[in-house]
Amino acid sequence: MSGNQRSIVLLAMPSIHSGAWRYPGAQPDFQSSFEQMKWFAQILEQGCFDGLFLPDSLAVRAAPIEALARGHSVATLDPLTLLPALAAVTQHIGLIATASTTYNEPYMLARRLASLDIISGGRAGWNLVTSSNPNEAANFGVEQHMEHSARYRRAREFCSVMDGLWESWDEDAFCRDAVSGFFFDPSKMHALDHRGPHFSVRGPLNVERPVQTRPVVVQAGASEAGRQVAAETAEVVFTYQTDLPAARQFYADMQRRARAAGRQSALKIIPAVFVVLGDTLEQAQEKRHQLDQLVDDESSLATLSIALGHDISQYDENGPLPEIPESNASKSGRDRVIQLARRENLSIIALARRVCGYQGLEMVGTATMVVDQMQQWFEGGAADGFNIMFSHLPGGATEFVEQVVPELQRRGLLRRRYEGRSFRENLGLETPPHGYSRRCANGSDCE
Amino acid sequence: MSGNQRSIVLLAMPSIHSGAWRYPGAQPDFQSSFEQMKWFAQILEQGCFDGLFLPDSLAVRAAPIEALARGHSVATLDPLTLLPALAAVTQHIGLIATASTTYNEPYMLARRLASLDIISGGRAGWNLVTSSNPNEAANFGVEQHMEHSARYRRAREFCSVMDGLWESWDEDAFCRDAVSGFFFDPSKMHALDHRGPHFSVRGPLNVERPVQTRPVVVQAGASEAGRQVAAETAEVVFTYQTDLPAARQFYADMQRRARAAGRQSALKIIPAVFVVLGDTLEQAQEKRHQLDQLVDDESSLATLSIALGHDISQYDENGPLPEIPESNASKSGRDRVIQLARRENLSIIALARRVCGYQGLEMVGTATMVVDQMQQWFEGGAADGFNIMFSHLPGGATEFVEQVVPELQRRGLLRRRYEGRSFRENLGLETPPHGYSRRCANGSDCE
Repeated sequence: MSGNQRSIVLLAMPSIHSGAWRYPGAQPDFQSSFEQMKWFAQILEQGCFDGLFLPDSLAVRAAPIEALARGHSVATLDPLTLLPALAAVTQHIGLIATASTTYNEPYMLARRLASLDIISGGRAGWNLVTSSNPNEAANFGVEQHMEHSARYRRAREFCSVMDGLWESWDEDAFCRDAVSGFFFDPSKMHALDHRGPHFSVRGPLNVERPVQTRPVVVQAGASEAGRQVAAETAEVVFTYQTDLPAARQFYADMQRRARAAGRQSALKIIPAVFVVLGDTLEQAQEKRHQLDQLVDDESSLATLSIALGHDISQYDENGPLPEIPESNASKSGRDRVIQLARRENLSIIALARRVCGYQGLEMVGTATMVVDQMQQWFEGGAADGFNIMFSHLPGGATEFVEQVVPELQRRGLLRRRYEGRSFRENLGLETPPHGYSRRCANGSDCE
Repeated sequence: MSGNQRSIVLLAMPSIHSGAWRYPGAQPDFQSSFEQMKWFAQILEQGCFDGLFLPDSLAVRAAPIEALARGHSVATLDPLTLLPALAAVTQHIGLIATASTTYNEPYMLARRLASLDIISGGRAGWNLVTSSNPNEAANFGVEQHMEHSARYRRAREFCSVMDGLWESWDEDAFCRDAVSGFFFDPSKMHALDHRGPHFSVRGPLNVERPVQTRPVVVQAGASEAGRQVAAETAEVVFTYQTDLPAARQFYADMQRRARAAGRQSALKIIPAVFVVLGDTLEQAQEKRHQLDQLVDDESSLATLSIALGHDISQYDENGPLPEIPESNASKSGRDRVIQLARRENLSIIALARRVCGYQGLEMVGTATMVVDQMQQWFEGGAADGFNIMFSHLPGGATEFVEQVVPELQRRGLLRRRYEGRSFRENLGLETPPHGYSRRCANGSDCE
């Protein structure tokens, strides 16, 4: 592809479909095996993917144990421990770790992400989330989860502390001059001295400046508070969309919010998509159906309760979804599920199977059909790229790289080799200017 | 060496000597460069070292900025981010991360160490420390550091929570049976439900059981409280010793404490040693002298103030050390420095140079002389092995592996190839029995 053509952003994540681990040929231990995840990162790199994204949680799901035992991914590897290992065996692919602002300390997390960025030569990304699983609170000695808006206030301050810590050292601070004995230039060190409602952090960070200045910041906020925080602080926005008009609306809304917040470069809007490939449409549909058949009902109902923040085991599973009270769960996730039930008039169990299988955007068909859809979204102002979930692993990833990637490249939608020196450059994102963390959103210095 | 002969334990750490980065041929950015640290881990593995140890701190040193700027290692890489990357490019060497119990949360740290253990195939170690640098408190919103004994009470509970979380899953819990749909056997999951004075942690851990059951636990406690915690919970004890009789006494004391605590296998006692090699004794001594000449005076005085927990810049640097009040710094470190000053009648500046250069055990001479000393300590009941600091990096490590390692092997003191399948096995440590975390120290079940 030519240098000035926009490249579709391709990210990938481990499969989220809860039947996928049982699919014929799937490796059920895929996510907890370093060898499998190494293979995964390497094949994605062969396919010129921009990045590998790892979701995370600080607890097992809040579900009855029998349901938990029938779900997958109850035990995975800590993303910020797995990604450095993957950095050592890859060269180009971006490495995005999910890390919660609710139970982490910014000094600790700033060190880890800066270290990953240095070790990987500028390939770290951070998916900033707040914790909405009530089981997480119980692992951190907290009686009650913080309520939704308090979590977002904390997230915003957390992010600003991270930015300040990442700018503890100027680019050329470390002179390491054996003759004079100066290891660094004292005028190029900046202690943060942050004092805010949630955090007091003096700094400086005891890790050098990240290679990318700022590891790529990703967010998936979809609620009002979440969208606003994303528009002000993120560079990549993950989103769950199902239809093109709504996705276009979301895309435009986010770009408008970013401009209003004084952001100079555009946000990259990346919907998640579940891709199921077949040699024919019928074969792909049959595969999709087979995957759904492998979802366990008990596990599905538990997943639905979590998504709603409300225990639905008390209702008749063949009946309709009753009124669901407000809760402390992710607002956008809850609303999406309720709308789906109302729109398609689904019984509780049918809804549960959809939610647990996968209820978001899906592209099911031949490689050509999938690329057609991607191109329509990409060129239609609905997406800058996609966060791909494969039908199953490893097979689904192999099929995608062998069939979809060459077709994207043939149409000039995807690079044939990596061109940037960092994750940020491959994404086409600008490097924040020197001292960015010490400026206000309107571009003037804060002091 | 024969199967039943005890092998000397060889660990290595990055150089601590603050003049070493200026030594001719040294790489001044050694510790913050992944490529250099990769080379380091790989050459240690060539030399059949048991493990690589990374020290850590959660802040820059508490020193005036001019002094800080002349010291090395102000910015390194987060150990638990660097070690997974090194795990991916090595096969046998143990990987020991320092991590503080003062500002971490046990759930977070248990995940990271379990993940490192799985990624490395059973090579994780944890150096359990408490935080004594007052700058660390300021990075975590804490006005005053916890006092010494409170830090140790928290450390003890922290360690017991870690053990409980690491036993969240039985060895065979994950059946991943695609036919039945059971990903794990619910009877083989154990939620911890810990409620103690410092932590409330429900569990289970959302990472599988570590390959080693328990990552190797290391401690360096030398104070009364530190020794006792180490005897009850650690398997490897780091220690600073200077003479053989005192080291023998420490060795015997620690084994006695471990037996009294009902520990079944012996602790491995590992003194730190600074090794300076030369073709002749004179050449090695000259090298040692040259290293000390490269230590900056301002930086040395700042280091001395930290070691004493007391600002000594107010005194005449050519005068003797005055009475130093008690402080919240590491007790054992402080006492060691004061004793050194009194014993050798050192001026403040002379003491500072010794402390900043290196004041612990050193072995300076030809490879044969160094091996003689090691053998004397090893066979004389003073050490199970050594935690080696090389004169400078990379040169000092190359010399050691080329000269000292073959001589140790020739004498049957060191393996010629790795025999164990894990760090624990190479060290000759037993695997804790199934359910160890749920038993009391006296061997009976707690309930």
